[in-house]
Amino acid sequence: MYLKLRSVLNKATLLVDSELFGTINRNMNTRRIVFEEFGDPVKVTKLVDDKLPDSIAQEEVIVKMLLAPVNPADINTIQGVYPIKPKLPSSPGNEGVGEVISVGSNVTNVVPGDRVVPLQTNGTWQSAIIVNSSNLIKVDKDIDLHTISGIKSNPSTAYRMLKDFVSLNEDDVVIQNGANSACGQNVIQLAHYFKYKNVNIIRSRPQPDLENLKNHLKSLGATYVFTEEELRVTNIFKDGTLPKPRLALNSVGGKSATEILRSLDNGGIMVTYGGMSREPVAIPTSLFIFKDIQLKGFWMTRWSKQNIGSAEQQQMYHELSQLMKNGYLVAPTNKTVPLGSFKQVLQNSVSTKGFTGVKYFLDLQK
Amino acid sequence: MYLKLRSVLNKATLLVDSELFGTINRNMNTRRIVFEEFGDPVKVTKLVDDKLPDSIAQEEVIVKMLLAPVNPADINTIQGVYPIKPKLPSSPGNEGVGEVISVGSNVTNVVPGDRVVPLQTNGTWQSAIIVNSSNLIKVDKDIDLHTISGIKSNPSTAYRMLKDFVSLNEDDVVIQNGANSACGQNVIQLAHYFKYKNVNIIRSRPQPDLENLKNHLKSLGATYVFTEEELRVTNIFKDGTLPKPRLALNSVGGKSATEILRSLDNGGIMVTYGGMSREPVAIPTSLFIFKDIQLKGFWMTRWSKQNIGSAEQQQMYHELSQLMKNGYLVAPTNKTVPLGSFKQVLQNSVSTKGFTGVKYFLDLQK
Repeated sequence: MYLKLRSVLNKATLLVDSELFGTINRNMNTRRIVFEEFGDPVKVTKLVDDKLPDSIAQEEVIVKMLLAPVNPADINTIQGVYPIKPKLPSSPGNEGVGEVISVGSNVTNVVPGDRVVPLQTNGTWQSAIIVNSSNLIKVDKDIDLHTISGIKSNPSTAYRMLKDFVSLNEDDVVIQNGANSACGQNVIQLAHYFKYKNVNIIRSRPQPDLENLKNHLKSLGATYVFTEEELRVTNIFKDGTLPKPRLALNSVGGKSATEILRSLDNGGIMVTYGGMSREPVAIPTSLFIFKDIQLKGFWMTRWSKQNIGSAEQQQMYHELSQLMKNGYLVAPTNKTVPLGSFKQVLQNSVSTKGFTGVKYFLDLQK
Repeated sequence: MYLKLRSVLNKATLLVDSELFGTINRNMNTRRIVFEEFGDPVKVTKLVDDKLPDSIAQEEVIVKMLLAPVNPADINTIQGVYPIKPKLPSSPGNEGVGEVISVGSNVTNVVPGDRVVPLQTNGTWQSAIIVNSSNLIKVDKDIDLHTISGIKSNPSTAYRMLKDFVSLNEDDVVIQNGANSACGQNVIQLAHYFKYKNVNIIRSRPQPDLENLKNHLKSLGATYVFTEEELRVTNIFKDGTLPKPRLALNSVGGKSATEILRSLDNGGIMVTYGGMSREPVAIPTSLFIFKDIQLKGFWMTRWSKQNIGSAEQQQMYHELSQLMKNGYLVAPTNKTVPLGSFKQVLQNSVSTKGFTGVKYFLDLQK
């Protein structure tokens, strides 16, 4: 009730003393994961109870965090091996979804009760955060929490890679390795929605897992799913079943990257956005010279920094949200763990290097 | 005298019967190298005497060929390992310079006595050729024959690579490996002319050859010359001596390519146009993702096909010719061999795989 009144007051006047409203934070607590040094995530992180500051500024918003994905980049950040190193002590977590609790007197884009996704933010792995209102996008409450919480990274990466490198038409072909990763699954779903044929490469594995995975990816919209060995011998690009791919997406590196490169059409582009095999990409020089193949890279973090608040960014979030709402984009197979059990997630993420097949989420209110 | 009269007649009327003038070719001979199968160049080639056809068409020109460079692509074409395979029997040779002997009745761009470079032509390794007049550019007789004869490949490759991939400003830095190749030397001379700082990587070799080569490249305009080992430990990009390169040119592949890649500035582009080491280019995925490095390829043959007769092509040849005339571009260290001794050149080209340090030219009138 008090919150509702506040919201009305905020809208009524922007000249009101923000310090007055700042007092509402007094005694509000947050549980947060923090690390004071870089290193083994299991060892350097701890869960602490903190008071939120007594007041918030006129442009700030208090968000009760609901859910946050655990991304490989979060693990690498704690390890100190990610190119962006936060000042220590720091709280991990680069994305998530929450609910607005209260807003500063100058805030006009959200009101208490709104569901929001924070954009440029470190430290989403806590039960409440204070952020600048310009750093929030309001999202529809109808959208599945797991799906929307990850909108900033994997769905956005998949979207940009399909849009920004090659001008694809319906029935053009895109090929990707690491197709069962969270981002790979988004690539399949978006390519299916955009009506691009998509050829998906996965590592081999024993049956029935292999067949189950293939069926799962096909259910998401995969046109073809091959193991690396199957790609080497397939004739679909030779017998006219499919045109050669004009775009390849590489999140693996090593031989896997070379194989998808070899299938590319003349003038095609391979975009590298990950290197799960930890091996470099090796390219015969003839592919550059005589086939005019191009290799580029993509890093969502760079794109987001260069496009904060741009029309393109707004359009992308709008389109992705709609696809999530209508079920075209769904979260990867996942497991949700209470914030209090975060060490279990970190332990698992470090030991499997992300090759789990299951994406972890933290429930930040448990 | 007769030729002069013909030229006057040609200019006087375009309606004259071309068959009349066709008769002048009767009994004109050409000595040409031919090969009837792909294979070892020394074995599959022979020198034959041929009559030129009795008549030429209205748009055709007879060119007495003077000089032709021997390029690695020529050797690979005879071997059958080049991506473009001519119909057999074929005459090798993709560039050269000659003198117009006679012209068909519709020819307006050249007259007998003009010095010309044939463009899209196979078979320059012969003493006389018949080509369509649109396939000739007239060049200044003041320009050194060795230098102008190669204008289509190495100087043009160097020009396009410096112009088309990164918008460089004065004092921007370009780095290249294989810097002592014919094309590498053109890159140095053009970069020097355009006032780009250029860092040149060569393979190590015993003294005094190493110092002599460094001095030679510096005399052409090299800002720095390093061996691959020296590049690995130099501090010039770290201590502020030079900005990091925005463009890298790779004609070697393998470790050499990886080393010049590592020196590139964020967002830099490496252009591959050769692979002398026969080893693939290996790139850590992090360079793509976090440094936004791009890899592209360049093949002069493709560019020329896509830009036949374009304003860009004309501008390039004009500019390069002027630079040759004024001494900014000079031919690489070379040795000229009579057409009759061509097997000696082929033997040498095959056994050294181009790593000679001396470029061979054929004197087509000896």
